[in-house]
Amino acid sequence: MSVLVVGSIALDTVKTPVEEHADLLGGSASYAAVGASFFTPVNLVGVVGDDFPSAHIDYFGSRQIDLTGLQTVPGKTFRWSGEYMWDLNTRETRSVELNVFEHFNPVLPAGYQSAPYVLLANIGPNLQNHVLDQMQRPRFVIADTMDLWINIALDELLRLLARVDMLILNDGEARQLTKETSLIKAAAKIRAMGPAYVVIKKGEHGALLFGPNAQFFSCGAYPLEDIHDPTGAGDTFAGGLAGYLAAQDHGTVTFESLRKGVVFGSILASFNVEKFSLERLRTLTQADIDERYASFRRMSQFEVLA
Amino acid sequence: MSVLVVGSIALDTVKTPVEEHADLLGGSASYAAVGASFFTPVNLVGVVGDDFPSAHIDYFGSRQIDLTGLQTVPGKTFRWSGEYMWDLNTRETRSVELNVFEHFNPVLPAGYQSAPYVLLANIGPNLQNHVLDQMQRPRFVIADTMDLWINIALDELLRLLARVDMLILNDGEARQLTKETSLIKAAAKIRAMGPAYVVIKKGEHGALLFGPNAQFFSCGAYPLEDIHDPTGAGDTFAGGLAGYLAAQDHGTVTFESLRKGVVFGSILASFNVEKFSLERLRTLTQADIDERYASFRRMSQFEVLA
Repeated sequence: MSVLVVGSIALDTVKTPVEEHADLLGGSASYAAVGASFFTPVNLVGVVGDDFPSAHIDYFGSRQIDLTGLQTVPGKTFRWSGEYMWDLNTRETRSVELNVFEHFNPVLPAGYQSAPYVLLANIGPNLQNHVLDQMQRPRFVIADTMDLWINIALDELLRLLARVDMLILNDGEARQLTKETSLIKAAAKIRAMGPAYVVIKKGEHGALLFGPNAQFFSCGAYPLEDIHDPTGAGDTFAGGLAGYLAAQDHGTVTFESLRKGVVFGSILASFNVEKFSLERLRTLTQADIDERYASFRRMSQFEVLA
Repeated sequence: MSVLVVGSIALDTVKTPVEEHADLLGGSASYAAVGASFFTPVNLVGVVGDDFPSAHIDYFGSRQIDLTGLQTVPGKTFRWSGEYMWDLNTRETRSVELNVFEHFNPVLPAGYQSAPYVLLANIGPNLQNHVLDQMQRPRFVIADTMDLWINIALDELLRLLARVDMLILNDGEARQLTKETSLIKAAAKIRAMGPAYVVIKKGEHGALLFGPNAQFFSCGAYPLEDIHDPTGAGDTFAGGLAGYLAAQDHGTVTFESLRKGVVFGSILASFNVEKFSLERLRTLTQADIDERYASFRRMSQFEVLA
């Protein structure tokens, strides 16, 4: 099955303590769509300006990403600039230019409206709701979000939560949304807001997956010696998870598939941070993914392995 | 096989944001010995003053803990007092009275000198070295340590590292000892200092086990809704790990046993923090441990389970 990915497409300028690069391909939908494309065909909905390099369009096209839903409009592409502190865990946004993204109206091409799998990558919850308004009955809807929307668009976000099957957010955001310090209590509160499943990301410490009937999975992070650019790790995680799920479709989503989806999302994210922008994903092969999966399995299983 | 445990025995006063309790049974050897006793007989070496409550002695005796190596000397027992901040992650030591511990000379009874499994719980590395000086060829020696000894007794600690099979320390201490931010690089440096195996504890985020030939295991922490007293979690972890290993003895220590030892250490520690002092361990049953192991397995395995 294909997966519908909606989100932002941006040109990023990223500074770390050792490097700075300008006008990199970025945005939540770029990372998520490419992440998902390692598992299944993707339908991408987003907007770019007429300054958007055709090389990036060609790159999307070279993956199994359908671009019927990609709008190119007069003006400049969304630009974001950020700087990471020495530990690469703290980030400061240096500038945001919404440009053509300011008036983005995500319109689903007719063929996308019946998509069974939907990833609402990180954009305003009003836009995420607007996408769902156009859809028939999707089988599984995943929404990603961030602290900004909890701060400035909480009502829209709560309206969204009642309509999605899974919410992905990080530990700080889960605590912010629920006022609970315990992530277990926070996940229970979020599930009560709507989504049957909640994924809480813990950065370098992995991710927790919560589901109905006290179903629970704790996924370790893949330990890396060197991280070059954390930008897009969360988006790539969400894309890998959504793509894997869609590819496994057997008419229903099992907790088994969700567990493995979280593992594959983590693997994709672990590759993504090894280089700037989507550079590592450009050269990533199925063999790379298989090898890291095997090593992930070895490092986290503690009973005798077959 | 039995395990030899050497460390401190204390009376603790512990304050959390919600409770304060005085004169609790504490000390690295108390937690470690009781933790290990869930898996195998323990030989305990430590010192207490003549004020040490006989009820605590009786409790040790009620576990499979041999007390031939426990010295009772005139004077007061080692006392420690600490306070936890609201998140229970930050701790301030309020007072330390070494008392009889100041002149502790760990002497191994004759029957202990050929012990195959040794846990040098957290005490000064000079004392840990002194214990090893008295031993014949133990099969597997585990040492625990803390930031204090890295700061004030680094040479003794480095001398110790050349003589042990495994070092257990937390992430901050591993970075402090090696000046590496990456835990993978830190573990490699520590292994180069002597121990074939290194366990880096990450508090609520679990623990990493590193061994020869790039052997690696990442153990998630058991997620708890409520933590009441983190005191002794690390000591209980070390005790559970050492006790499990000794119990599995098949003439050699396998990475398979080490992985499971880390899991059982984590399980013991997860129980220990549920109540003050060793209160939760007092009522802990084999069935409790088995149940949590099963749930640990469910939460961390991602392939189809038998």
